[in-house]
Amino acid sequence: MRQVVMYAPGDVRVDDRDDPRIIDPTDAVIRLTAACICGSDLWPYRGVEPVDHTPMGHEYVGIVEEVGAEVTTVKPGDFVVGSFVISDNTCEICRSGYQSHCVNRTFVSQIGTQAEKARIPWADGTLVATPGMPDPALVPSLLTASDVLGTGWFGAIAADAAPGKTVAVVGDGAVGLMAVLAAKELGAERIIAMSRNPARQALAREYGATDIVEERGDAGVARIRELTNGLGAHSVVEAVGTQEATMQAIGATRPGGHIGYVGVNYEVQIPGIAAFFSGVHAHGGPAPVRRFLPDLVDRIWRHEIDPGRVFDLELPLEEAAEGYRAMDERRSIKVLLHP
Amino acid sequence: MRQVVMYAPGDVRVDDRDDPRIIDPTDAVIRLTAACICGSDLWPYRGVEPVDHTPMGHEYVGIVEEVGAEVTTVKPGDFVVGSFVISDNTCEICRSGYQSHCVNRTFVSQIGTQAEKARIPWADGTLVATPGMPDPALVPSLLTASDVLGTGWFGAIAADAAPGKTVAVVGDGAVGLMAVLAAKELGAERIIAMSRNPARQALAREYGATDIVEERGDAGVARIRELTNGLGAHSVVEAVGTQEATMQAIGATRPGGHIGYVGVNYEVQIPGIAAFFSGVHAHGGPAPVRRFLPDLVDRIWRHEIDPGRVFDLELPLEEAAEGYRAMDERRSIKVLLHP
Repeated sequence: MRQVVMYAPGDVRVDDRDDPRIIDPTDAVIRLTAACICGSDLWPYRGVEPVDHTPMGHEYVGIVEEVGAEVTTVKPGDFVVGSFVISDNTCEICRSGYQSHCVNRTFVSQIGTQAEKARIPWADGTLVATPGMPDPALVPSLLTASDVLGTGWFGAIAADAAPGKTVAVVGDGAVGLMAVLAAKELGAERIIAMSRNPARQALAREYGATDIVEERGDAGVARIRELTNGLGAHSVVEAVGTQEATMQAIGATRPGGHIGYVGVNYEVQIPGIAAFFSGVHAHGGPAPVRRFLPDLVDRIWRHEIDPGRVFDLELPLEEAAEGYRAMDERRSIKVLLHP
Repeated sequence: MRQVVMYAPGDVRVDDRDDPRIIDPTDAVIRLTAACICGSDLWPYRGVEPVDHTPMGHEYVGIVEEVGAEVTTVKPGDFVVGSFVISDNTCEICRSGYQSHCVNRTFVSQIGTQAEKARIPWADGTLVATPGMPDPALVPSLLTASDVLGTGWFGAIAADAAPGKTVAVVGDGAVGLMAVLAAKELGAERIIAMSRNPARQALAREYGATDIVEERGDAGVARIRELTNGLGAHSVVEAVGTQEATMQAIGATRPGGHIGYVGVNYEVQIPGIAAFFSGVHAHGGPAPVRRFLPDLVDRIWRHEIDPGRVFDLELPLEEAAEGYRAMDERRSIKVLLHP
């Protein structure tokens, strides 16, 4: 099969690899219908995370080809959406809703789903079958549920977005835009998107943003406070992962409010005393997408939400390198790859 | 009147000062029945926080002597307990339960209640009157409600201590011991106190600790995991404020669990990525004691809890310097001062 491999930072190729096969009785092998490039794939691309001939990709939808003897909830021919973290969905941590920290977890990025096929361990605990074969127009939206929608959704949940609340979203990447959509679905009264990019501002507004703030850093914090009687937002989603975005999120949240942080934040150091005197709640990390998948698939299936619009570039898998370039240069919000 | 003044780090004296008087119509003047020394008073004592001829103290109980024209809920002759943060208790932040971040807040440490008298601004929003004149044996417990009990209680609430949960408490100072008591009152199933001090271990057990862990740092984390099926505690209270204690708290909490941090943490830097991959909830800061005061006063009044036992040294106000020394040298958990 063909698979995207990052040889080194900035060096993305498509290679021939052996087809995956069932190893454990809890495995499934799926043929990918669509894959995509994640903002977090840019960390190794830019040399921030180590990379060396690494298969890439962790978001996926596809059709089950084969299952192991112990798999009971999906079968060959099913169309499935899976989380970007493998989980058994039965351990104590999974049962508490934190499947992304399952005692048996594997990050799908270690498998690589920018490919024609993939072996998915713990298929029952990771995959969710759709009610039938989806219309091709639904595929991009279903694909977002695998990570970017699930992550934005978790960010909004972690930030306690709810009716009557003001939610600010730091970051206008795909996850930030999905957090705007999630805040809207969760009933937030006012949704402030922080963005300087006209196209992204427009999409944020379509997804439910009521206000746009272009300022960043201290000026961004001041503007959010101005919009909230000097108090700060009830809920802030941090969907970038930089020091500036983190401090902006802390500063923009009112005491007793909630920050949901879903930007991977390798280089961030949070001054304890700033967190202390902020009086905020903070929660985040790798999103337990599997918790939300059945609900998200259902909302997409019923055409209630249209998250697939974050894909503004579609390419054949063979042109993955151009997809990485487009995202790195911010020419594209998010790239869908056709295997 | 007599008032404790810290001239410089390590230099504590008792001076004559003018008696306080009503300035604003929302003020009360109280005669202190008891005051005490807080662990956080050791920050300036040790030179970590600046100090220069600073009146000291922020915990207090006493009898109202005079009130301003707009005060309606307390009157001269009432015995009152007040929070260590002045709050109007009517602003939007107060109404959401975060009186320690009131838009009109003042830290009582700026007033100084290691003294014979004190002016308390926003008396209605800060003070709570007891049902009658307390028995002298109840005074130490009522005094704890002003900060140390209220702060330990908030730590346990922020850590989501509840029936069925395992709660670990990092720190065996007075706040840590109060967090143990709070976890017990909130119904926690298992309470792990982290302490190496036999006297404090004994008091922790009397307050409800079911397990004691003497190890610190990584070994402490490993021991907590060993006691919790490898998963970590559901709830961890950080009641120290050092880097080691903070990392210990993050490491000892299971994914999806809750950290309540109430140790003032000037020198702490939290690596964002450690917080990210921990998957914990974190909440803390200066405790909104006023939120809990009516309930805590009630529990003390009905002899349901006996938090006053954290005072293991009582001294006349004139001997405050010896009280500071005793706490600094960890000869005393907490010192009560008689004005």
